[in-house]
Amino acid sequence: MAAQKSTQPATGKSAPDSTRRSEKSRRAIYDAALALVVEVGYPKTTIEGIAARAGVGKQTIYRWWSSKADVLMEAFLDLAEQSVQEPGPTPSAFPDTGDIAADVKDVLRATVDQMNDPRFDVPSRALAAEGVVNEQLGRELVARLMQPSLDLYIHRLRAAQDAGQVRADVDPRIALEFFISPLAQRWLQHTGPISHEYTDTLVDYALHGLAPR
Amino acid sequence: MAAQKSTQPATGKSAPDSTRRSEKSRRAIYDAALALVVEVGYPKTTIEGIAARAGVGKQTIYRWWSSKADVLMEAFLDLAEQSVQEPGPTPSAFPDTGDIAADVKDVLRATVDQMNDPRFDVPSRALAAEGVVNEQLGRELVARLMQPSLDLYIHRLRAAQDAGQVRADVDPRIALEFFISPLAQRWLQHTGPISHEYTDTLVDYALHGLAPR
Repeated sequence: MAAQKSTQPATGKSAPDSTRRSEKSRRAIYDAALALVVEVGYPKTTIEGIAARAGVGKQTIYRWWSSKADVLMEAFLDLAEQSVQEPGPTPSAFPDTGDIAADVKDVLRATVDQMNDPRFDVPSRALAAEGVVNEQLGRELVARLMQPSLDLYIHRLRAAQDAGQVRADVDPRIALEFFISPLAQRWLQHTGPISHEYTDTLVDYALHGLAPR
Repeated sequence: MAAQKSTQPATGKSAPDSTRRSEKSRRAIYDAALALVVEVGYPKTTIEGIAARAGVGKQTIYRWWSSKADVLMEAFLDLAEQSVQEPGPTPSAFPDTGDIAADVKDVLRATVDQMNDPRFDVPSRALAAEGVVNEQLGRELVARLMQPSLDLYIHRLRAAQDAGQVRADVDPRIALEFFISPLAQRWLQHTGPISHEYTDTLVDYALHGLAPR
């Protein structure tokens, strides 16, 4: 896996100095890749351009990654990992307090905060825009960046089904879209403002339905 | 309004020959604009390029439209109008049979068919992708291309509230997102397949809710 290669560069040495140099290069490469995709767009971002901006040789990049898509995916995964170090909900785990409404609201509020953070917003938009017109990249973004989150939603919704809080005949893969898709569309397509109050409302409407009970 | 200008070009003449020539030019300009945005992307599409491809002078375009965004918006409105001429549901009206579930399913099935039509899919993606990274264009796309459809959903949902089929305390502007946003995300971001069966399921889940009744 590329993710392993990047954390344990195949330098042939294991001395601490070499590891530190590699870590520094890796971070410079991620920063350069994210900055370039914002400035010139995905099609014009090249391995050469990333290398020049990061101040490393082209071969350093090719030693660890096979393509610019590969570098960018890992730069985003790294960006998400960095946010885990910060206070707040952990994106790699889904809370389970036994109350599905409260738990989904918690996660969506954290997602809103992330979308409102320019460090994520700007490069995420640049990559998402390319995924709209470049189906192969779009599918890679889904598989590598979105699917882990979708799996957490599915897992939490299944637990809610076991607990009798979500109907047993509901497909969790479709149900989760009521939580994430309206928010994604407002964010990506500028169709409306996003806030904690908005995502709380989505959760209430989705669980209780639009029709009278 | 630009839309009026384009259907009644300010040629200073009203002879049928002049009108025919203008209509032919207008169509050539729309076709050229849609083709260019697909081929070179929105940023590199220019009035000059559209004029050259359409075989008209730059001034012909500037006489009727103020910018490339203006030309493209109207080319899309025209594309949507053309589909009205064809058999099938009319996008400019929302059915009201008295059954909100059946009516929304009808409209969403037609939307799925449109998304699966390359004539709409390819240029729509190119424009939507630019709207993701270009907020001003994104907001124009919403106001001029999406809002008329959203208004039809709101109007139909209000009628359903009056008929007691949708709860009175639901905000129709948010409720409509359960119908359109999951489909939009699957289509734009390649997160999943789209089909009539899928959109039928969205309508049933949204109306009845995910929690047991």
